[in-house]
Amino acid sequence: MQAFVMNGIGETGFAEKDRPEPGPNDAILEPTVALICTSDVHTVHGAIGERENLTLGHEAVGVVDEVGSQVENFAEGDRVAVGAITPDWGSAAAQDGHPSQSDGPLGGWKFANEKDGVFAEYVHVNDADANLARIPEGVTDEEAAYVCDMLSTGFAAAENAAIPMGGTVAVFAQGPVGLMATRGAALQGAGRIFAVESVPERQELAREYGADEIVDFEEVDPVEEILGATDGAGVDGAIEALGREETLADCVAVTKPGGTISNVGYYGEGETVGIPREAWGVGMAEKDIVTDLCPGGRLRLRRLLRLIDAERVDPTPMTTHEFDFEDIGEAFELMASKEDGVIKPLVRF
Amino acid sequence: MQAFVMNGIGETGFAEKDRPEPGPNDAILEPTVALICTSDVHTVHGAIGERENLTLGHEAVGVVDEVGSQVENFAEGDRVAVGAITPDWGSAAAQDGHPSQSDGPLGGWKFANEKDGVFAEYVHVNDADANLARIPEGVTDEEAAYVCDMLSTGFAAAENAAIPMGGTVAVFAQGPVGLMATRGAALQGAGRIFAVESVPERQELAREYGADEIVDFEEVDPVEEILGATDGAGVDGAIEALGREETLADCVAVTKPGGTISNVGYYGEGETVGIPREAWGVGMAEKDIVTDLCPGGRLRLRRLLRLIDAERVDPTPMTTHEFDFEDIGEAFELMASKEDGVIKPLVRF
Amino acid sequence: MQAFVMNGIGETGFAEKDRPEPGPNDAILEPTVALICTSDVHTVHGAIGERENLTLGHEAVGVVDEVGSQVENFAEGDRVAVGAITPDWGSAAAQDGHPSQSDGPLGGWKFANEKDGVFAEYVHVNDADANLARIPEGVTDEEAAYVCDMLSTGFAAAENAAIPMGGTVAVFAQGPVGLMATRGAALQGAGRIFAVESVPERQELAREYGADEIVDFEEVDPVEEILGATDGAGVDGAIEALGREETLADCVAVTKPGGTISNVGYYGEGETVGIPREAWGVGMAEKDIVTDLCPGGRLRLRRLLRLIDAERVDPTPMTTHEFDFEDIGEAFELMASKEDGVIKPLVRF
Amino acid sequence: MQAFVMNGIGETGFAEKDRPEPGPNDAILEPTVALICTSDVHTVHGAIGERENLTLGHEAVGVVDEVGSQVENFAEGDRVAVGAITPDWGSAAAQDGHPSQSDGPLGGWKFANEKDGVFAEYVHVNDADANLARIPEGVTDEEAAYVCDMLSTGFAAAENAAIPMGGTVAVFAQGPVGLMATRGAALQGAGRIFAVESVPERQELAREYGADEIVDFEEVDPVEEILGATDGAGVDGAIEALGREETLADCVAVTKPGGTISNVGYYGEGETVGIPREAWGVGMAEKDIVTDLCPGGRLRLRRLLRLIDAERVDPTPMTTHEFDFEDIGEAFELMASKEDGVIKPLVRF
Repeated sequence: MQAFVMNGIGETGFAEKDRPEPGPNDAILEPTVALICTSDVHTVHGAIGERENLTLGHEAVGVVDEVGSQVENFAEGDRVAVGAITPDWGSAAAQDGHPSQSDGPLGGWKFANEKDGVFAEYVHVNDADANLARIPEGVTDEEAAYVCDMLSTGFAAAENAAIPMGGTVAVFAQGPVGLMATRGAALQGAGRIFAVESVPERQELAREYGADEIVDFEEVDPVEEILGATDGAGVDGAIEALGREETLADCVAVTKPGGTISNVGYYGEGETVGIPREAWGVGMAEKDIVTDLCPGGRLRLRRLLRLIDAERVDPTPMTTHEFDFEDIGEAFELMASKEDGVIKPLVRF
Repeated sequence: MQAFVMNGIGETGFAEKDRPEPGPNDAILEPTVALICTSDVHTVHGAIGERENLTLGHEAVGVVDEVGSQVENFAEGDRVAVGAITPDWGSAAAQDGHPSQSDGPLGGWKFANEKDGVFAEYVHVNDADANLARIPEGVTDEEAAYVCDMLSTGFAAAENAAIPMGGTVAVFAQGPVGLMATRGAALQGAGRIFAVESVPERQELAREYGADEIVDFEEVDPVEEILGATDGAGVDGAIEALGREETLADCVAVTKPGGTISNVGYYGEGETVGIPREAWGVGMAEKDIVTDLCPGGRLRLRRLLRLIDAERVDPTPMTTHEFDFEDIGEAFELMASKEDGVIKPLVRF
Repeated sequence: MQAFVMNGIGETGFAEKDRPEPGPNDAILEPTVALICTSDVHTVHGAIGERENLTLGHEAVGVVDEVGSQVENFAEGDRVAVGAITPDWGSAAAQDGHPSQSDGPLGGWKFANEKDGVFAEYVHVNDADANLARIPEGVTDEEAAYVCDMLSTGFAAAENAAIPMGGTVAVFAQGPVGLMATRGAALQGAGRIFAVESVPERQELAREYGADEIVDFEEVDPVEEILGATDGAGVDGAIEALGREETLADCVAVTKPGGTISNVGYYGEGETVGIPREAWGVGMAEKDIVTDLCPGGRLRLRRLLRLIDAERVDPTPMTTHEFDFEDIGEAFELMASKEDGVIKPLVRF
Repeated sequence: MQAFVMNGIGETGFAEKDRPEPGPNDAILEPTVALICTSDVHTVHGAIGERENLTLGHEAVGVVDEVGSQVENFAEGDRVAVGAITPDWGSAAAQDGHPSQSDGPLGGWKFANEKDGVFAEYVHVNDADANLARIPEGVTDEEAAYVCDMLSTGFAAAENAAIPMGGTVAVFAQGPVGLMATRGAALQGAGRIFAVESVPERQELAREYGADEIVDFEEVDPVEEILGATDGAGVDGAIEALGREETLADCVAVTKPGGTISNVGYYGEGETVGIPREAWGVGMAEKDIVTDLCPGGRLRLRRLLRLIDAERVDPTPMTTHEFDFEDIGEAFELMASKEDGVIKPLVRF
């Protein structure tokens, strides 16, 4: 079968591989639609180290091709989504409420990290009963592909921000995760959402997803702006959806004492990530910093699919470009260049 | 000044009273708009016992007429809302996170219970800094009056139901509290909301507020219907917004193991309120039963007002009738009879 | 192999059975020590309905005899404990934080309910990686047997009671679960523990486990006594460790507004379990009722074993009697009769 | 009256001041016993900026000398403790569950910060009903003085570490707050407590308070040691009780993915406090960082006093030195020099 792989840092291309075989608890998925993630680009650029002949991709939906002997909930032909994160649900971390950390830090992240990813004609899914979810009739593959990572991560950012009903929240960066954090904040009952973003297309989408105010960091200082708009009090929660030290610092600065900084950014550089000491109240202002890695699992996926089905969220406006699988290389280049107003490139198999 | 009072069980009428005086921490409010609550009717019918010359009412907005010497946040002329529940914020219960229970069970409920209520030309507000909230310019008095109780109680019902993002919830009874519970569930990210109600006008409002499915208990058995619609699994959370033993039993029955029954109903009769033993999993199905009394306080009110201001909720469709203060007796009769499709009667001063 | 089985309601005896075979994820355990639970007695008396040739027992430790092909964490010869509750960790309920409810109400309870229990020469353990825990060197089998159910359930009762540091708690009934709830309350930082019990030996053990005050319900009314001792305020949390409607009512009555009633009792009779309406604050006193079924899983067992290893709890004083497996019938009779000061009978294989 | 004051950075001495007058909600306390805190020393050294004629001290117990007109719970002659932090309980932050942050960051910290502290013959206590607690008969003033800050802060560190029953925890630094964090961890049900400390007297006290293992950072690398002792998994929670960037980094490094870093350290230097990027899982390992400022309030103090009364904790071994008020200057020098094995100097009035 054909797979789109990483061949050392900076190198991508197609490779011919054997179709994977399922163990007793596994399934084989035949993808129909996939999405490219900025973190795929990071991976190719070396963020998780050297990889040879590793199939890329972690956002895909498709059809079950085969299941292992112990799989009870799925059968050949089922139309399903699989989480970007596919935890080992019996692990200590999962039993402790942190499935994404099963078997070590970020250990639930297997696709295009510990094993081949989803940009291939067939995909191996571990613990299929727990990590797949059937797609409801009312939801298309093109919509469903967003639950694998974008909705799950973005909504988790909002959930972790501990936004009280009618509370205030600032979402830093309106890429696809940030946009879904904005939508998530609205769905968590926020009363006022500041979306920090400078790209006009993303600002517009942010408004559609529920942002009450756009803070263009190229025109104003977002900390001054948000503190000013809240009479100096700061927001109940701030969301870091970018992964830059400066942005995290801004999040700490705009959060009220007793508020929460919710991080879903991935910090790719530096020895340390600095918290601004005074804005953090010298460690005593009860500004908690919480982090997350995309929650996976059948239950989570099912709930996210339900929100699409019920029209609480429509992710498709984020699909700015479409490609056939054979042209996935172009999609990658586009995602790397961030040109042409790209938000998410969708790939069809 | 004129006040609309209860004079023994079943008796109401106007009385002439002295204008109240503020203590150092208090304020005097001159109401502009008030709402009549079913619990006012219960009170008159003896629910909290005999009362003589007690001013009725606990939902009002208005203008600050005078403040005590220690009040810092408010001044004469401020347009404000006051919570139906006005806790003592320094009490042990408030320090423990349960302000509505300050100084004893339901102890934060002072209006028309421990002291005169709001259906008067002037109203005494204890701990004014903590229990009043300024009304934003974009919110009318007619809208703001709903934050005192209806939004606060209804939304609390949804918050306590611990609805996960994309989760399922059933709201039993679509009176004004139930309608706001439905809206609250939508604002908490519910993926599927069942609204149990038989009155067509209320069914329609429920849909407007976010209900995905209406369960008419006069046509179907709501337990069978909701269990059937969830493949027998039950909902993540069920909300009791009526105060009847049978309804609570239905809530327990439709809630999945590991789910939450959120009660805001007031049980007026009987020695006990029975939990159905088997549906409750013989006490081991992890179906928690949580209860609440309308959260009050400046912060809560401010957040609820923000949700109106941001157009996340419009309570005014619940105002089915309007009366002048001098005609409040008629409003009471209407609320007691539940005739003419009444949901909330609004009173102007 | 020999197994001690239930043969219809009220009938027990030995039966010859085939040694179970492990599936890919399973293990076979050879028990060394088991404990008899009151719920085994209830089962025989018909509490969960008719059962034929069902091996009894759910509290056992032993040695791994064989593992399935997918089991990674355990091997033949490992000395292990297995939880009374052996969830399916990939199920929706487990993903939702309620593993004991996996695959339906109380669905994690498989031993001596859905499949053969542990009173046999060989025992089948599902999902072995997730449901077994290695016993540390410093912990004997006789100690370890208590983590399967008694420590896990009793401590869960205390954890769920949401006892604040220095808070007050009342534990109703000092059977083995109640005693461990008392110990659990002490280990959760309770500042004052009332243990309600009339049997002198149990009163004494309760004191050893951390009870500050014994309330003998045959001599005083426990509600009056506990309310009196707390100046009428009530306790922060009350624990029901018996499973009787009257006791649950007492728990509600002694709990302060804003407090928690933590139930681990199993209610065996009646259509409903009545909550006392007025003591419950007519549904508005924020007295939450939470329930649990013995938490299982490798992580839980490992943590409980650690508490024994660190000498934070010594369960062995609860072992009042010992029997060889061949005499288990006598042990059952003793547990049923509650004679001779029995708390827990231990069985050796 | 005499007061021990700060007169600019680095300068202390006695001053004659007027006895304070209570407002309607306040009380005047006549101290009997006080404790000197390292943060008093920091204050004198300029940590919170320049201060002129500011009375120092925030840990004291004594007798009520006078109460304001609105004070209901206390009267002249009552023997009481007052929290180091005396929040405004009606503030938005307090209503939000963060009383220590009332009226701005660290805003509940008034003594020796926003107003005169407790090292004086008479002390003004704001919001007396909410911020004082009567000392039980069984508790001496010398014991009670520890609830003002040391027990409250140390125990909060343990509570915030979210230690599961039987979980593992590392407490960095065994000064008085760290020692109480160690005791707090034991009272929260920790199964294994690592105490990081190099001073032998403090190591010994740590063992008495519940530490299972001492990690002497002058002899071993604490990160290696603790990771090694937990088979590389890390601890469930780590507590920073020192306020140094390196220590916080160690806390992050020894905490398992999905664990909690609980900070009560006060960071006195630098633009930023650096989180080690890789050990923090590049922002995706679900290692939350939570902070706190000493919880105050009548309820908290009462609960802490109860724990002393019930002999769950004996703080007096931390009192290494005693001084009369007139010699408080010497006590200050001792606390600054950390000589003579000092842990806490107690001052008698």
